[in-house]
Amino acid sequence: KDRTIPVEELTEKISNGSRLHLAKGITLLESITPADKIAGQQVLLNLLPKTGNSIRIGITGVPGAGKSTFIEAFGLMLANAGHHVAVLAIDPSSTITGGSILGDKTRMEELARHPGAFIRPSPTAGTLGGVHKKSRETMLLCEAAGYDVILIETVGVGQSETVVRGMVDFFMLLVLTGAGDELQGMKKGIMELVDGIIVHKADGDNLKLAKKTVREYRQLLHFLQPASLGWTPTSLPVSSIKLTGLEEVWETVLAFKATMDTNTFWAERRQSQTKDWFRSMINDRLIDTFFAEPGRKEQVAELEQALLKGDITVAGAVERLFLG
Amino acid sequence: KDRTIPVEELTEKISNGSRLHLAKGITLLESITPADKIAGQQVLLNLLPKTGNSIRIGITGVPGAGKSTFIEAFGLMLANAGHHVAVLAIDPSSTITGGSILGDKTRMEELARHPGAFIRPSPTAGTLGGVHKKSRETMLLCEAAGYDVILIETVGVGQSETVVRGMVDFFMLLVLTGAGDELQGMKKGIMELVDGIIVHKADGDNLKLAKKTVREYRQLLHFLQPASLGWTPTSLPVSSIKLTGLEEVWETVLAFKATMDTNTFWAERRQSQTKDWFRSMINDRLIDTFFAEPGRKEQVAELEQALLKGDITVAGAVERLFLG
Repeated sequence: KDRTIPVEELTEKISNGSRLHLAKGITLLESITPADKIAGQQVLLNLLPKTGNSIRIGITGVPGAGKSTFIEAFGLMLANAGHHVAVLAIDPSSTITGGSILGDKTRMEELARHPGAFIRPSPTAGTLGGVHKKSRETMLLCEAAGYDVILIETVGVGQSETVVRGMVDFFMLLVLTGAGDELQGMKKGIMELVDGIIVHKADGDNLKLAKKTVREYRQLLHFLQPASLGWTPTSLPVSSIKLTGLEEVWETVLAFKATMDTNTFWAERRQSQTKDWFRSMINDRLIDTFFAEPGRKEQVAELEQALLKGDITVAGAVERLFLG
Repeated sequence: KDRTIPVEELTEKISNGSRLHLAKGITLLESITPADKIAGQQVLLNLLPKTGNSIRIGITGVPGAGKSTFIEAFGLMLANAGHHVAVLAIDPSSTITGGSILGDKTRMEELARHPGAFIRPSPTAGTLGGVHKKSRETMLLCEAAGYDVILIETVGVGQSETVVRGMVDFFMLLVLTGAGDELQGMKKGIMELVDGIIVHKADGDNLKLAKKTVREYRQLLHFLQPASLGWTPTSLPVSSIKLTGLEEVWETVLAFKATMDTNTFWAERRQSQTKDWFRSMINDRLIDTFFAEPGRKEQVAELEQALLKGDITVAGAVERLFLG
């Protein structure tokens, strides 16, 4: 019955900031039912003029770095200061049942109850392949609903960091003390994707070591290529328990925005992200369509075996695939 | 007239190590004439059982690092020790007329004259798009001709580093003194693609600073994730003028191979490289075919404009492209 809300009504309610209708709109976008998808796209199209007015922040971290705790503390600080904060999660490998974001949500209880905040768990497991494509649309819908800070969390390890980097303005990495050794499980080259590194749990007995780690990361970042032209990534100590360093993180994001606005890189990056998104969706569609043809996967697997045995050349295998 | 050499004769002559016929075989593989392509693939297929028995080394470097000088010195050392050394160049952006490899070739004069060496310039400019795909086939043909060390040089900046990393066993980066600041123009994350970093021009007044830079890089590499499982990348000082450090580089490559052989990573990486090559050629073919359809490029460009103006959603643009 919920599905029968007219597109116009949904558009208006989302536009007026209704969290309930925003959630319904996102559900339409994520739906696999053709009618829902069409409705969802229509809502999004109606709201496009209202999108783009947020700061998009991507947050990734090594396992155990305390992303949820940080997001709760950082989000609350911003919401209490009058910002509208939306929290999204991206997990391209979300076939694993449940997913940590549901567990995380209970840990973000206080933020979830805040009237200025909206938390959206990662899309249902099982919608394999298209999950993260929908997250961009979700982000746009949140912007149209008036959220001016979007926090996008990467869930799980693997390629989600690249996907999120391609969606956000500022990308931050949460680490613990002891620079470098802990980066196992992160995407290779992650250090060159980030605009800032937060050394988390910088409190108590850990504080001194955290400050040392901050210095080490700053030195390291100096050696690497910056992710965003004109901005030298920095490192900051943060404690989400003692609530220290959170304001410095926000000041850093604002300083970043000011720098990017000066050299027009902010708008240019967003334009190029949209183009990349379009190209990658064309690409995915071509691949998906090709491999959905009957017997195609088996044929490719057979050719792969022949290749590894040295019975065929790669060019020969490709020819066989396309010429019959 | 050269083209009329029968496939069987060409196969045999290449197999016997004829540099002239190897060059002819490569020309067939690079040809855009259908008959030549078929002949080239047949030769390659015949020779597949003889491929794979080399150490494949990728070499990239910051501008001015002296890649050609290094390759000449390193290649000569190996050739004088009885190795058969093939030098190939990869330049995915080789639309630029001429290309530096031709200039480089004159600088590799001594190596080019050595009976144990074979130098192949990058494929002719103008064969846009397929250039680097052919380089893998060229590499295989060189192996079949008995070359046991393949040096693959990246030419130009940009994405060639990733392509070469996907083709080789050991990937090295040439830098100059002053760690980090000079990495402009290199691919982001390059440090996490390499198995070794050579601090070049480590001679004369530069020697002390070069040794310091080596130490800095070793420290940095310790912080980053290794490109090859089980191998901690290292850094070495080399002078191609004074001929110092070259043997250490070769010993490092051999130590790397020994490590990789122990954990079966050597063979596994090559298998996965072949699969990736196959997948990426399927991918490229789909994209190329799609964009070759009449009016397609214009249509995509128009939709892109509509996207940037906010007149259409990305999903909507993709639908329009595929459903008419």
